[in-house]
Amino acid sequence: MASICKISTRDARFALPRGAGSDAIHRDPVYSYAVTLLEDSAGRRGSGLAFTLGAGNDLVCRAAEFYAQRLAGRPIEEVMAEFGALQRAMANEQQFRWLGPHKGVVQLALASVTNACWDLWAKSRGVPLWRLLLDLSPEQLIATLDLSYLEDELTAQQAADFVRQRLPSRPQREGVLTAGYPGYDTSVGWFNYPDEQVRENCRQAVAEGFTAMKLKVGSPDPERDIRRANIVREVAGDDARVMLDANQQWTLPQALAICRRLSAMRPFWIEEPTHPDDILAHKTLAAAIAPLRLALGEHVPNRVIFKNYL
Amino acid sequence: MASICKISTRDARFALPRGAGSDAIHRDPVYSYAVTLLEDSAGRRGSGLAFTLGAGNDLVCRAAEFYAQRLAGRPIEEVMAEFGALQRAMANEQQFRWLGPHKGVVQLALASVTNACWDLWAKSRGVPLWRLLLDLSPEQLIATLDLSYLEDELTAQQAADFVRQRLPSRPQREGVLTAGYPGYDTSVGWFNYPDEQVRENCRQAVAEGFTAMKLKVGSPDPERDIRRANIVREVAGDDARVMLDANQQWTLPQALAICRRLSAMRPFWIEEPTHPDDILAHKTLAAAIAPLRLALGEHVPNRVIFKNYL
Repeated sequence: MASICKISTRDARFALPRGAGSDAIHRDPVYSYAVTLLEDSAGRRGSGLAFTLGAGNDLVCRAAEFYAQRLAGRPIEEVMAEFGALQRAMANEQQFRWLGPHKGVVQLALASVTNACWDLWAKSRGVPLWRLLLDLSPEQLIATLDLSYLEDELTAQQAADFVRQRLPSRPQREGVLTAGYPGYDTSVGWFNYPDEQVRENCRQAVAEGFTAMKLKVGSPDPERDIRRANIVREVAGDDARVMLDANQQWTLPQALAICRRLSAMRPFWIEEPTHPDDILAHKTLAAAIAPLRLALGEHVPNRVIFKNYL
Repeated sequence: MASICKISTRDARFALPRGAGSDAIHRDPVYSYAVTLLEDSAGRRGSGLAFTLGAGNDLVCRAAEFYAQRLAGRPIEEVMAEFGALQRAMANEQQFRWLGPHKGVVQLALASVTNACWDLWAKSRGVPLWRLLLDLSPEQLIATLDLSYLEDELTAQQAADFVRQRLPSRPQREGVLTAGYPGYDTSVGWFNYPDEQVRENCRQAVAEGFTAMKLKVGSPDPERDIRRANIVREVAGDDARVMLDANQQWTLPQALAICRRLSAMRPFWIEEPTHPDDILAHKTLAAAIAPLRLALGEHVPNRVIFKNYL
């Protein structure tokens, strides 16, 4: 059986056109990918990445290299058969655990390695990843996940039962394979774009058939956010979904004040209004501005914090 | 005025005697310090460190080097006059923020730089740090702290008022300068020590006058934890404070089961029973085992999670 024999990482960075990708924090972003490359003795390559934004990408690559070395000499089928236990062991690896657990550089590095493993597994079976996932039994699927510290809310048995109960209705959901998912245009309203560029981008998105688009907010000047949100609503029309993303820049008092004002233009959601660790602030804000909804997750550090959010 | 002109970091690691320092996670620990060194043009040196446990120390040094470079050419008095704002700006530094915010490698790196700044400031004033802190006005002290995302619970004004209200009673607390704080022996019960070594260490600690000591628990085998906790209680005596530290190894169901059993030997506290991010699990556990108390903080990621715990 083929075994993983070459392991490397790549610090891949991509400059963006002027203003693109900018948000309330990242004024001059470089899209960066901490890439893990695994090659087995049959010459199959798996690649995985974790996204970052800039110089810190190098640190993630170094940590990913460290974790990935644990896979050397192992067949991917063996790695994936108990991938949940392996992920738990890697997160507890004593050389790096003090940097976590399950946070920041070490969590991103583990994500990059995890993605490379999944990619190599699908390639070694000669199927797309979605097909591999559908082919797994509920127990096999759950064994790929580290569910530790969730036991009080979700045991492995409950998770497998949850998947099994939905098996009979699976064919009804497979239409997505031909019809696809509806997309939204995330590029109309990057933070650094001048108002007129936002307006023109929205016009183009509407002309291309988009019915959903996102604006970056979180400016130190709330009037700027409100003015630009109204521009997007005006051009997108009453029926479009307009998402607003503050990239964690508001304190709770600021978020309460501005979200109440922004609700007048009926956002589809407000994304990352404040610090991603602040569970109670999100709860307070959600209650205060309902039915306007919050979205977050991109920066929620790990499944334990997610459990607390739930 | 002297300015910071030399900046470096040092990855300092120290091997420990066999078994020393071990806990439920770290079976073979290397005490490691990510050290930041700042030197000003008058030749004064400030050093700061963040503790880690092993190979990951290198990543913290690299991040600390990155942050510390922002201080080049600046007088330490200027840096510290608005240190809170500077810390906020550094935590938001766009090259590294995706790795946080306020977590793991970047948070530890900022801690190392922060400590070096305080050390250089005290040395440049020619006083010990405790004296410098007492010499600051409440407003000057609070300006050294980044209180962002705490506004809903604690504003800078409230924090300064809190300090000011306690100024008149300060002399009553200055006895600590001559009498010191009572200490505890944290070395009697490292995880890897055999039972007999724990027993002998406790005897020595008692003989040296310690009335408080700590045992590492969190074994996969709960009977081992209970047996060893009883050994410590037996040797330390009924009146000693015996602290138990599980280093985050129990799930909530495990913690509930074993803490109920451990309460029979009356621990002074149970430290880090489960995942440090699991606010609600700690709340559930604390309620279930009261009056037995929990201790944590060493791995709580940042002030925002602390706010949620409160």
